Amino acid sequence: MKRKGILIILDGLGDRPVKELDGKTPLEYAKTPNMDKLAKIGILGQQDPIAPGKPAGSDTAHLAIFGYDPYQTYRGRGFFEALGVGLDLDEDDLAFRVNFATIENGIITDRRAGRISTEEAHELAKAIQENVKIPVEFIFVGATGHRAVLVLKGMAKGYKVGENDPHEAGKPPHRFEYADEDSKKVAEILEEFVQKAHEVLEKHPINKKRRKEGKPVANYLLIRGAGTYPNIPMKFTEEWKVKAAAVVATALVKGVARAIGFEVYTPEGATGEYNTDPMAKAKKVVELLNDYDFVFLHFKPTDAAGHDNNPMKKVEMIEKADEMIGYIIDNIDLENTVIAITGDHSTPCEVKNHSGDPVPLLIAGGGVRADYTESFGERECMRGGIGRVRGKYIVPMMMDLMGRTEKFGA
Amino acid sequence: MKRKGILIILDGLGDRPVKELDGKTPLEYAKTPNMDKLAKIGILGQQDPIAPGKPAGSDTAHLAIFGYDPYQTYRGRGFFEALGVGLDLDEDDLAFRVNFATIENGIITDRRAGRISTEEAHELAKAIQENVKIPVEFIFVGATGHRAVLVLKGMAKGYKVGENDPHEAGKPPHRFEYADEDSKKVAEILEEFVQKAHEVLEKHPINKKRRKEGKPVANYLLIRGAGTYPNIPMKFTEEWKVKAAAVVATALVKGVARAIGFEVYTPEGATGEYNTDPMAKAKKVVELLNDYDFVFLHFKPTDAAGHDNNPMKKVEMIEKADEMIGYIIDNIDLENTVIAITGDHSTPCEVKNHSGDPVPLLIAGGGVRADYTESFGERECMRGGIGRVRGKYIVPMMMDLMGRTEKFGA
Repeated sequence: MKRKGILIILDGLGDRPVKELDGKTPLEYAKTPNMDKLAKIGILGQQDPIAPGKPAGSDTAHLAIFGYDPYQTYRGRGFFEALGVGLDLDEDDLAFRVNFATIENGIITDRRAGRISTEEAHELAKAIQENVKIPVEFIFVGATGHRAVLVLKGMAKGYKVGENDPHEAGKPPHRFEYADEDSKKVAEILEEFVQKAHEVLEKHPINKKRRKEGKPVANYLLIRGAGTYPNIPMKFTEEWKVKAAAVVATALVKGVARAIGFEVYTPEGATGEYNTDPMAKAKKVVELLNDYDFVFLHFKPTDAAGHDNNPMKKVEMIEKADEMIGYIIDNIDLENTVIAITGDHSTPCEVKNHSGDPVPLLIAGGGVRADYTESFGERECMRGGIGRVRGKYIVPMMMDLMGRTEKFGA
Repeated sequence: MKRKGILIILDGLGDRPVKELDGKTPLEYAKTPNMDKLAKIGILGQQDPIAPGKPAGSDTAHLAIFGYDPYQTYRGRGFFEALGVGLDLDEDDLAFRVNFATIENGIITDRRAGRISTEEAHELAKAIQENVKIPVEFIFVGATGHRAVLVLKGMAKGYKVGENDPHEAGKPPHRFEYADEDSKKVAEILEEFVQKAHEVLEKHPINKKRRKEGKPVANYLLIRGAGTYPNIPMKFTEEWKVKAAAVVATALVKGVARAIGFEVYTPEGATGEYNTDPMAKAKKVVELLNDYDFVFLHFKPTDAAGHDNNPMKKVEMIEKADEMIGYIIDNIDLENTVIAITGDHSTPCEVKNHSGDPVPLLIAGGGVRADYTESFGERECMRGGIGRVRGKYIVPMMMDLMGRTEKFGA
């Protein structure tokens, strides 16, 4: 008997006790009737995306959860960012994640250029693509908000290059470091690219308008995350013999999903930001479940609230996610579906970044042995029947309940 | 946000149910209000220093807990014993752990020479260093009590040599076995050394006095634990970018701490024996926490009580340790500290030796997600929120809560 599967990742879900939430975590504090219902009929646990105590990035964590050892496969975020904005890379391309930023008198005053809009960023990117000339062919495209992607064609060998992002405002941009001769060449190209792009951006009408309006101008590029093609095949859909779709707005995660063979959908209203429309995503998941065996749903703003150290916003986003999940479970045949809910990593408010804490995990649906747990939260997950497992076992456990695993031995 | 860390290892802490303790373990039976308080606000679990069912030595277990795979790094206890008594070894030195013992008519009648005092042992060691001549340069120094260290300069290649310790009284000493030509040479040197030392010891005034007093004489050396320099770097303090100190009395554990870059302190009154002064250690820990990021506190006599199959003594030692811990937590800012308490291994009274049982683990302090546990004991640890982890994850989990881990990925 075969079931369908839904994997829901609430980005950065796990947290630590928060004083203003009466010592509860945001997930414990939030009203989540739908996830609690799934906890009651399902099974809970804790998962370490990489290993106990090791903070994972969103890209490495997703790789791990999809079953790929990030230490074996990960070759930098730039690759996934590029796939995520729909670029198809060649094996010798080198890709970067880029921020539009604000520079004043040599100091980065805003790493996100006042969170410039997607439309503005795309127009600025177009101007750069058309007007900047450097010694190699390049592709420069806007992603969402202040984010963009740069691809240097044929430069993969120079992947050991650093970044110019100082990672906090009030500092000058770094010079690009490099570890070998190939990377030195890339570093020089990047310095030239950043300088020429700066000149194009400075005089662009969008920035003139922003300056007039008193908004931070997008007059500088911060470049990081050099990434190339992973050196091993990651054929999720072939390995598991499933037709798989992803509902994602965030470019980096879109890229991971594309890399492993998922067809990626971003319904209108899904932005990856606080203003995202969870119901648009929920409806898309239910719709896709008619045609696909496995649907992956990614929800980003829980992570943003952790980075922003805003516990009440995280609570609000978790409650939004719970409504989204409510719509899904009300519109599917749960007995013939396996649904897993987890985060890719913990992003505790107090840390304002990813931590190495384990991540709450819930599995419910057909075939699932229920445990004694009553609600979905960090503490309740500690007594859950799944125990504490590595992230890479989530998909195998789901696929097994879905009737899609193969016996090893006789 | 960065926190400081305290790792407390109560040697041999774990045990099995003991009939005379109403079927409880010593840790469950002991009154431990301070550790119970930490259990309530913190999180419990079980850790396997090496792997489930595999008994670890104190040296290999400490290596594992500090994050070093003992199968990769361990090259014999002698190395750590030598470092522990303050010797600085060369890479081609071969070091041994030595016991002063009593031999009568060719039979070892006491493997510890009536637990001879440190002062007597040091004087006997001096006599051996001055009067014994063998074909290679050697260093022979007393450690604590009946313990001593022998270093054969430049003989590292002969590390595949056995021991002469029969490991129980009433038997003759073994002859040194060997696995290759280099080790054969070492075995011959050791036989000669033991014989010549025996002659020096027999006629030494200390032994004449002991004989007169009816005490077991220290007239023989039992040599074991050939050890050389580990073949990989173990740079705890560099890896974690912390300033680290250890409060330890036991030479072997001092040696491990020195090997990985800790500065080692042994406050007056800390003996590593039943008579140790736990408050001297507690005060030292609190004092060191002003200057260091990470302080490791080792408490030995819990292990001795297990080896001696003395459950009530183990209870007493655990209660002493609890007072020590009480002083510490009353004198630090717990919100800005991460405190972990565990054993290096279990030493169940019924086994009278190390066992492969998992070891109780407690983590409390700032950022820690509490679980439902109420007290520190083997059974309660089984339902703890940490779950069951390998010893090597303790430090990463602590460092993560201390804000000192690095993200892998973006």
